[in-house]
Amino acid sequence: MNRVLFVLAVAGVLALPRFASADEGMWLFNDFPSAKLKAKYGFEPDQKWLDHVRLSSVRLAEGCSGSIVSPDGLVMTNHHCAHSCIEQLSSAKKDYVASGFLAKAVADEVKCPEIEINQLVEIVNVTERIVAATKGLEDAKYNQAQKGEMSKIEKECATSDQLRCDVVTLYHGGQYHLYKYRRFQDVRLVFAPEFAIAFFGGDPDNFEFPRYDLDVSFLRIYEGGKPAKTTDFLPWAKEGLKEGDLAFVSGHPGGTNRLTPTSQLELERDVTLPRRLQYAYELKGILDQFGLESPEKKRISNALLFFVENGIKARKGRLNALLDKPFFGTLVTREQQLRAKVDADPKLKALYAGAWPAVAQAVDRFRPMRDRYDFLEVGRGFNSDLFGIARMLVRLSAEIEKPNEKRLREYADSNLPKVKMEILSPAPIYDELELTRLSFALSKLREELGPDDALVKQVLGKESPRELAARLLKGSKLKDVKVRKALLDGGAKAVAASTDPFVVLARELDPQARELRKKYEDEVEGPLKKNNELIAKANFAAYGTSTYPDATFTLRMTYGTVKGWTRQDGTVVKPLTDFAGAFARETGSEPFKLPDSWTKAKAKLDLATPFDVATDDDIIGGNSGSPIINRNGEAAGVIFDGNIDSLAGDYGFDETVNRAVGVHSAALIEALDKIYGAKRIVEELKGK
Amino acid sequence: MNRVLFVLAVAGVLALPRFASADEGMWLFNDFPSAKLKAKYGFEPDQKWLDHVRLSSVRLAEGCSGSIVSPDGLVMTNHHCAHSCIEQLSSAKKDYVASGFLAKAVADEVKCPEIEINQLVEIVNVTERIVAATKGLEDAKYNQAQKGEMSKIEKECATSDQLRCDVVTLYHGGQYHLYKYRRFQDVRLVFAPEFAIAFFGGDPDNFEFPRYDLDVSFLRIYEGGKPAKTTDFLPWAKEGLKEGDLAFVSGHPGGTNRLTPTSQLELERDVTLPRRLQYAYELKGILDQFGLESPEKKRISNALLFFVENGIKARKGRLNALLDKPFFGTLVTREQQLRAKVDADPKLKALYAGAWPAVAQAVDRFRPMRDRYDFLEVGRGFNSDLFGIARMLVRLSAEIEKPNEKRLREYADSNLPKVKMEILSPAPIYDELELTRLSFALSKLREELGPDDALVKQVLGKESPRELAARLLKGSKLKDVKVRKALLDGGAKAVAASTDPFVVLARELDPQARELRKKYEDEVEGPLKKNNELIAKANFAAYGTSTYPDATFTLRMTYGTVKGWTRQDGTVVKPLTDFAGAFARETGSEPFKLPDSWTKAKAKLDLATPFDVATDDDIIGGNSGSPIINRNGEAAGVIFDGNIDSLAGDYGFDETVNRAVGVHSAALIEALDKIYGAKRIVEELKGK
Repeated sequence: MNRVLFVLAVAGVLALPRFASADEGMWLFNDFPSAKLKAKYGFEPDQKWLDHVRLSSVRLAEGCSGSIVSPDGLVMTNHHCAHSCIEQLSSAKKDYVASGFLAKAVADEVKCPEIEINQLVEIVNVTERIVAATKGLEDAKYNQAQKGEMSKIEKECATSDQLRCDVVTLYHGGQYHLYKYRRFQDVRLVFAPEFAIAFFGGDPDNFEFPRYDLDVSFLRIYEGGKPAKTTDFLPWAKEGLKEGDLAFVSGHPGGTNRLTPTSQLELERDVTLPRRLQYAYELKGILDQFGLESPEKKRISNALLFFVENGIKARKGRLNALLDKPFFGTLVTREQQLRAKVDADPKLKALYAGAWPAVAQAVDRFRPMRDRYDFLEVGRGFNSDLFGIARMLVRLSAEIEKPNEKRLREYADSNLPKVKMEILSPAPIYDELELTRLSFALSKLREELGPDDALVKQVLGKESPRELAARLLKGSKLKDVKVRKALLDGGAKAVAASTDPFVVLARELDPQARELRKKYEDEVEGPLKKNNELIAKANFAAYGTSTYPDATFTLRMTYGTVKGWTRQDGTVVKPLTDFAGAFARETGSEPFKLPDSWTKAKAKLDLATPFDVATDDDIIGGNSGSPIINRNGEAAGVIFDGNIDSLAGDYGFDETVNRAVGVHSAALIEALDKIYGAKRIVEELKGK
Repeated sequence: MNRVLFVLAVAGVLALPRFASADEGMWLFNDFPSAKLKAKYGFEPDQKWLDHVRLSSVRLAEGCSGSIVSPDGLVMTNHHCAHSCIEQLSSAKKDYVASGFLAKAVADEVKCPEIEINQLVEIVNVTERIVAATKGLEDAKYNQAQKGEMSKIEKECATSDQLRCDVVTLYHGGQYHLYKYRRFQDVRLVFAPEFAIAFFGGDPDNFEFPRYDLDVSFLRIYEGGKPAKTTDFLPWAKEGLKEGDLAFVSGHPGGTNRLTPTSQLELERDVTLPRRLQYAYELKGILDQFGLESPEKKRISNALLFFVENGIKARKGRLNALLDKPFFGTLVTREQQLRAKVDADPKLKALYAGAWPAVAQAVDRFRPMRDRYDFLEVGRGFNSDLFGIARMLVRLSAEIEKPNEKRLREYADSNLPKVKMEILSPAPIYDELELTRLSFALSKLREELGPDDALVKQVLGKESPRELAARLLKGSKLKDVKVRKALLDGGAKAVAASTDPFVVLARELDPQARELRKKYEDEVEGPLKKNNELIAKANFAAYGTSTYPDATFTLRMTYGTVKGWTRQDGTVVKPLTDFAGAFARETGSEPFKLPDSWTKAKAKLDLATPFDVATDDDIIGGNSGSPIINRNGEAAGVIFDGNIDSLAGDYGFDETVNRAVGVHSAALIEALDKIYGAKRIVEELKGK
């Protein structure tokens, strides 16, 4: 899904000094504040403990976290992290999203078309090499040299397709680490509950608490066609978490902006978030109505609707945080304080004072190109799986002929297995949904750039958005994986000769898309990187280095306790819910309708079983599927959400209200055992 | 349409001194700057000229302008101002929106179910009475006393249903005038072109120029079942407007905020406009998809979609203006300058300095109640014609028993003919569209207030939004006008006894809606009125009184010339388009598809005929349908839009780019004559 949307992370930097005593921090595994933890909680994880947890944690490359919970490669993550797989494995006849999925035996486990899992096996600090490669360079040249060196390091590291090597930027350029992952592309679905209980309460309850969701799925990593044997895994918690218990979360927070300059945040607040919301709300309206047209239309659009609705709620939360004047005021003050410290020291001033104005200028250069960049290069004007595939084929065929370090980053050697997996994915593509998405996207392209824009005229010609979308779909053979394979194998020549209308369109648009990309990288991205790196260094100089870097979808460890909170209106929210609460909340109408399996099993269930749990761990989007780990290093639950206040965590952590939300280990066992009859999984989890 | 949305105008005050020399100003007919006009353009309209234009101008009570263009009550306005009437007169068999409408003879003219036309016959200054009634009162009491006195004055004036009397607030309380209108409720459709040419270019071209739209309709006012005889009307222009020609616009600009305190504008920018846009975009998505489901669904949802899309574009323009930092900066500076002048004079300071903080406090009091107010009292959570009717029945039956001056303003005696017309409108109401709108609105109610909110629980109970909407629709008999009539005639007793589910719901919600309304009026509206009046007075004290009041949907006169402009990117836009341009812009696909009538008539047409025209008159929403008048007092065209830059005109007028857009008189005659064979109308217009 959304192959065409290459999401670009916004630059972020460092934590707030003011929150230093809170349970704040998305800590690096190779720089964990064990001493601080000991002082506060009397528990000091050693490196062995940390290494074990790191190796038991995994990343779903599309944007989630997970954990290995058995020696046979059983992976626990969220239902919503495997939702697209579950949908892709379904058909009009058998809808696993609605009915749930349980592989009775290992042989019944089914391969997910597009899930790639990464296990972080090694971290190497490569800061010196990157710094040496970019020394004395400015903006565009700085950016190119840095990307080139990163691709070079990654290529040296990735000696086989089973290794994924990413050079990651930490502390916004304060450090660069090489993350070496074991890559699993054979990932199979083991268990998923019904969507109705995975996402009980639906969009209305999303980002809220109390909750009653069994948002879990179990996958399994395979090697050589067999379950992968793993020495590192999290044993199941012998005791469930209680209020006040220490709770670690090991996972991959996607991105935070805790010291991003306010000029960048203003763009986020005034332009990026509002536009994204407008786009998403319209698409949500279309999909809602589309799904009412038939059960099959509902089925094929459900995963996309979920994705869109989730994005809306997350963005609204972030936008509301940025629009909150006192909150934004603290961000401004924080920046002013740092700038004042820099200005007060002539040496620091000479080195760093220019960074903030330079960022503001880069943001101003971005403003007039933002819409076009978003619609053409990021792909929001061409919301279609087939267009996404066509574009990957066009780009890959061109990029592959260049030296690795000169390529667009997403086509560097180390990323190719993922790209090829997506191109050759057997996941079903539905004409009606494609037509709907693409017609919408093309009409937004025209709306945002205007009907007289040269690009819009080139794309639409005399056709309406829907006519064009219909013609492309009618003429294209790209739904056939064999056709894609032939183009992939045929390389630049085959792609150049293709008359497939999606390939033709992607090919025709590519020169201007690339030109825009280059302009963006040279005039915006490069200066932003360079100057945010300076700001990171200024922050080190002012406040020292004993802190954590902003989230970058790399593995982090956070700690906290099981803890409720008090709302602004005075309501006290307790940190644990139970099964009885789910039955009490049921109305019988979606999204507050429990699945039949639950209703039938009610009498057998211990209704006092803890269901969902809130902790004050510092998490954010990307942490979905992360294990909650107790002090014994055992799996005590799985994170699936944060409360509404956690969305402001993008910009700053407020321990009084920011909460992570997960499924409690006891709920998982009780449901697997008594509702789903998944004895095989229960035994595997319990190590029997 | 949208009976349930009682749109509330945001308070506005005065014009910018800095634009004093521009063609700025929505001038009062009883305070027109004739001398200034003479100095600039050598033409000085006298009072007779002005009175004649005033009496030839009309208002469509739903929110448009128009002009009388024959002695037999022929009224010219926009197609989009009569769109809902044209749709209401259509059926699945005969779609006048698509095909256009032409009454061959007077006898073929058909009554519009909901159009009321007002002709302004007298203006009386009643400032002294209002001031005396509110003297020494604060906030809630001030507000109640003012409303009571207004209703009293209106009742004294409105001696028959044929008179509509409104006390209007000008200069934000600097003055109060009684506007006495002749009221026409028998309004018939004479001519409308096809939607495809009325709105050629559709949403993409909306608020843009160059344009090629024949956005016109002709109506006729009737008295005693016969065409109304009128001594005042605009004769047709003997010569068409050319670049540089003086052009007046007489019409009813809906509202501007040119000296609204920035604290109120910040609420607009950060909360009101973004929320409205989110609501509208989602509804647009739903309606777009709904319309694809069948031609009939398209037909019945078309007018609402147009309304929603138009609102989106207008709000986006206003939001972009407020988000433009330099532009907003000028508004802040303007406010600071006025406050500095006030602070510098001890007497002024004592009188007025507290007004700005008081406004900011009222805005802060509004924030926590805004969503609930919008969804419950304004009705955004119950987007349904039937609910709107039910609510009017419930409220009217209660209000009618109170003394006139104690009632909610919209149920004062002078407003009752309009309310009754809406309740008893025979306009068709379509179940499928009602279900779609209401399901959506209820789901938004739940989204914005949360599923655990007491009101949401009361409304939805255990039902989903769609289940509830379906149940209400299934059980209601309100589609039958006779049922409504019985409830209207039966009064409070009949309404209390009704088991119609919409009436029951409206009745159950009314107490809390009223409580909220009262809280809003007492704690927000009252203080805002009171303090904005103080700010208006401070402005008079600082800059004098020779200016125009902010727009309030009352009749105004603006002047300017036929004039193009230069875009930011350097493109020069000429002020006139021609028929040839329309054919050149045609793609054959909606919304760039000309109707068959045009294609067939092409050979007969003079393609050099001027089509649309841009002027620098200062207009805004509500001016739609206003006549463009030349210096001879003749009808030279009809305003139907402004360019995108005109949307910032809500907050300030920038003569360099702000343009009004209309249909040229020559286009109207050429099309009526050669395309539509509407000889009867051409002759009536030309006075033959």
